[in-house]
Amino acid sequence: MLHLSGGSPRTRGHLVSAADLTRDDAVLILDTAEEMARVADRPIKKLPTLRGRTVVNLFFEDSTRTRISFEAAAQRLSADVINFSAKGSSVSKGESLKDTALTLEAMGADAVVIRHHDSGAPHRLATSGWINGSVVNAGDGTHEHPTQALLDAFTLRRRLVGPDAGLGQDLSGRRVTIVGDVLHSRVARSNVHLLHTLGAEVTLVAPPTLVPIGVEHWPCEVSYDLDAVLPKSDAVMMLRVQRERMNAAFFPTEREYARRYGLDGERMARMPEDAVVMHPGPMNRGMEITAEVADSARCTAVEQVANGVSIRMAVLYLLLGGSESAVTNYRTEESK
Amino acid sequence: MLHLSGGSPRTRGHLVSAADLTRDDAVLILDTAEEMARVADRPIKKLPTLRGRTVVNLFFEDSTRTRISFEAAAQRLSADVINFSAKGSSVSKGESLKDTALTLEAMGADAVVIRHHDSGAPHRLATSGWINGSVVNAGDGTHEHPTQALLDAFTLRRRLVGPDAGLGQDLSGRRVTIVGDVLHSRVARSNVHLLHTLGAEVTLVAPPTLVPIGVEHWPCEVSYDLDAVLPKSDAVMMLRVQRERMNAAFFPTEREYARRYGLDGERMARMPEDAVVMHPGPMNRGMEITAEVADSARCTAVEQVANGVSIRMAVLYLLLGGSESAVTNYRTEESK
Amino acid sequence: MLHLSGGSPRTRGHLVSAADLTRDDAVLILDTAEEMARVADRPIKKLPTLRGRTVVNLFFEDSTRTRISFEAAAQRLSADVINFSAKGSSVSKGESLKDTALTLEAMGADAVVIRHHDSGAPHRLATSGWINGSVVNAGDGTHEHPTQALLDAFTLRRRLVGPDAGLGQDLSGRRVTIVGDVLHSRVARSNVHLLHTLGAEVTLVAPPTLVPIGVEHWPCEVSYDLDAVLPKSDAVMMLRVQRERMNAAFFPTEREYARRYGLDGERMARMPEDAVVMHPGPMNRGMEITAEVADSARCTAVEQVANGVSIRMAVLYLLLGGSESAVTNYRTEESK
Repeated sequence: MLHLSGGSPRTRGHLVSAADLTRDDAVLILDTAEEMARVADRPIKKLPTLRGRTVVNLFFEDSTRTRISFEAAAQRLSADVINFSAKGSSVSKGESLKDTALTLEAMGADAVVIRHHDSGAPHRLATSGWINGSVVNAGDGTHEHPTQALLDAFTLRRRLVGPDAGLGQDLSGRRVTIVGDVLHSRVARSNVHLLHTLGAEVTLVAPPTLVPIGVEHWPCEVSYDLDAVLPKSDAVMMLRVQRERMNAAFFPTEREYARRYGLDGERMARMPEDAVVMHPGPMNRGMEITAEVADSARCTAVEQVANGVSIRMAVLYLLLGGSESAVTNYRTEESK
Repeated sequence: MLHLSGGSPRTRGHLVSAADLTRDDAVLILDTAEEMARVADRPIKKLPTLRGRTVVNLFFEDSTRTRISFEAAAQRLSADVINFSAKGSSVSKGESLKDTALTLEAMGADAVVIRHHDSGAPHRLATSGWINGSVVNAGDGTHEHPTQALLDAFTLRRRLVGPDAGLGQDLSGRRVTIVGDVLHSRVARSNVHLLHTLGAEVTLVAPPTLVPIGVEHWPCEVSYDLDAVLPKSDAVMMLRVQRERMNAAFFPTEREYARRYGLDGERMARMPEDAVVMHPGPMNRGMEITAEVADSARCTAVEQVANGVSIRMAVLYLLLGGSESAVTNYRTEESK
Repeated sequence: MLHLSGGSPRTRGHLVSAADLTRDDAVLILDTAEEMARVADRPIKKLPTLRGRTVVNLFFEDSTRTRISFEAAAQRLSADVINFSAKGSSVSKGESLKDTALTLEAMGADAVVIRHHDSGAPHRLATSGWINGSVVNAGDGTHEHPTQALLDAFTLRRRLVGPDAGLGQDLSGRRVTIVGDVLHSRVARSNVHLLHTLGAEVTLVAPPTLVPIGVEHWPCEVSYDLDAVLPKSDAVMMLRVQRERMNAAFFPTEREYARRYGLDGERMARMPEDAVVMHPGPMNRGMEITAEVADSARCTAVEQVANGVSIRMAVLYLLLGGSESAVTNYRTEESK
């Protein structure tokens, strides 16, 4: 059974942080996601693997896209899903995370997919001993969003290496540029760590006020000149601008932001011919990305959504289905 | 595979508008709904037909009744259901209907059941090329609500012709009167078109201020005298008064409305003996319908709800299960 | 088929009130819950018993914990679940409970699990003739919460008698003390009746202002001295303080409440060695219970949550699966 978390060894594994994943963990997840992607081609787009297992979506923040991606993934593995929106209720207060956890454990949750506004809440849940089920971080504060980084890596591998040729491969030598509000972005943080683990070279491009303190310890380069970096990028990942965080303290105007850090057709033309444009969605067309770029064949935003379901199936499968023999059984069933 | 929409031929069919349905389309749906109604009598009230298919309920407006009717229909066909309430969220803004659609498509939605406050949103979704899945209109603005019209037609055929005798039949020569705020009613609009397609003679009775402009091009009569029309009606369909729209501009008082356009026992007595009273629910007892009429054996409101599940099963089945051979297989399984 | 309700004999049984249960009814539910608890140990934690049945959670009040407990119970029996949150919508008004009920009946709901702010709403639903499906009271006003009392009794029997030795047994001679705001507590009310039916001796301890009028007709003792009662208690059930109800009219301060009616380690030490501490959750640590007591091995709060799923499975199973032969079939399948 896999232990995908950096926590102490336990009966069940967790996925709390992309930074905890080894290269082999990550490649196994990507390879498993390739198998999961093929389920969509079957006459009945469903595996019986997790029948009788319960996946709880514990969302302290609204995020319909992420929630329904996990819900679809669990359903395709035949798990039962319970949605627990804690937003605004008394359980959203720090103190009672424990009681909520004990409740879900007692109800027999095999996995708790948690989205929380506090960085560290999923780690606390996974290491507390409150629950035996697997914890999957679906985004915590400004900390991490590991399944997003995994689906991004999966998308990159498919685009740059190819679905079949990619099996067992990492992203060695690929150059990925991440552009935007890195300071507040858990997506950026998870990607920097995972891409580095997979052998890619990462460059961050951000307004000076939106670069995190301590970034010099991150395994990446930092640049303030998007145009200089583009010709040396195999992929450019545009972060979503969170308008509520764009105030004068950080940056003058939206227009100025778009001019200096947005990706338009002209800029895209400076990228190498096969390079791709990524975006975690939903896109602010006209802000960090123009409609022309968003709708071009180079933009992988829609593939990323589809790949998200495959990655989440793989993660749930590895954490809950989990033994090597189960993988074998699945492969056997698949090859019938 | 059926193409229930008026859009261009595509891999999947849609149900956007009752006005698009041919007589044969409509009769096929009604006949299929008769088969679906029999599922409720089986020891296990469920068909395996849509196992592995995903139905997304994309609701930009609250409508618990319609949502759970579609949810029950999908569950009885063994489909997976994902509820996506877009109300009040950022996705409720026009611009991003596209991105929402692309997301649902990427997640593998086989059908998107959409309720939207803007007339035309389902049509846009179906004809945009954004999604390959089937689009089912669950009510858009003041435009259409085609499954409501279909369940009304199904209810009429069962009551006026009979469940078994009705197979293959339309409503030729039946006289249906629709009463109330026609101006704002998508239910009325869908019913006028579908009933006409099925051969019925439709009369609208409404306060003069609540008759739509251009009604002279609709395939129906208009009258302002309810009492004169009742003796010549095989069915009277009472529209729900939406109180928030009843202001002085349209009509003096609620009491005056009830007096002139409400159905009470005395008025019901003027109808032919076998004539029925229909209401899409929820009823405003004392307003457009008295409790006496609502609770009488002539009132089909509760049957309409039950028939709604059968009709929605039929629509999902025909759109997603969809081939003739699948119908055959189903019939074979049914007859075992 | 069982008739768990005190209503007139009908096709389907209901569970409206713990006060209606006979000793044999209650023991049957507890014994069935023991069987259900074993489902969690199976490789696939699911029974096919209620496949094709639909359970509707009709919640007029928010209660995530109770809702997901019923949802998990229904899923483990393979039923389909529809969540209908009526809070704040037009259906939350008294008049239209009827129309909501008729709608759910028409949609084929086999069971309606109802949580309502008005005492008596589930009884009205069960005895109205509006629906044929089973009604399960999930808490109504200050009236009853029968599945809570059943899970409490189940927890007590497991702790005080033992899971296996307990089969067929009641709680004769056990002494249970219920502490706190009895006046507003449906949990207290249901427990007093059920525990009495099962042969236990019940003592209420409450501030004088929070003792209901007419308590002298309840089958229990009343005391105002917690410390005097503790040494004679096999179990102490701490009620949750509902802070919004704690005002000057009832009690001076929270601190004063905790001092006189809260359970801390010192007080717990006065209880007999094997005595247990119960709490329906969520706990106000530091208020009615200290963290030390809440986290001690004597506290059954977490077990109560787990037992809640088993009890709700048993109730749904007996009401919907319901024939003796079905029990037999289940046992046969279980013993394979």
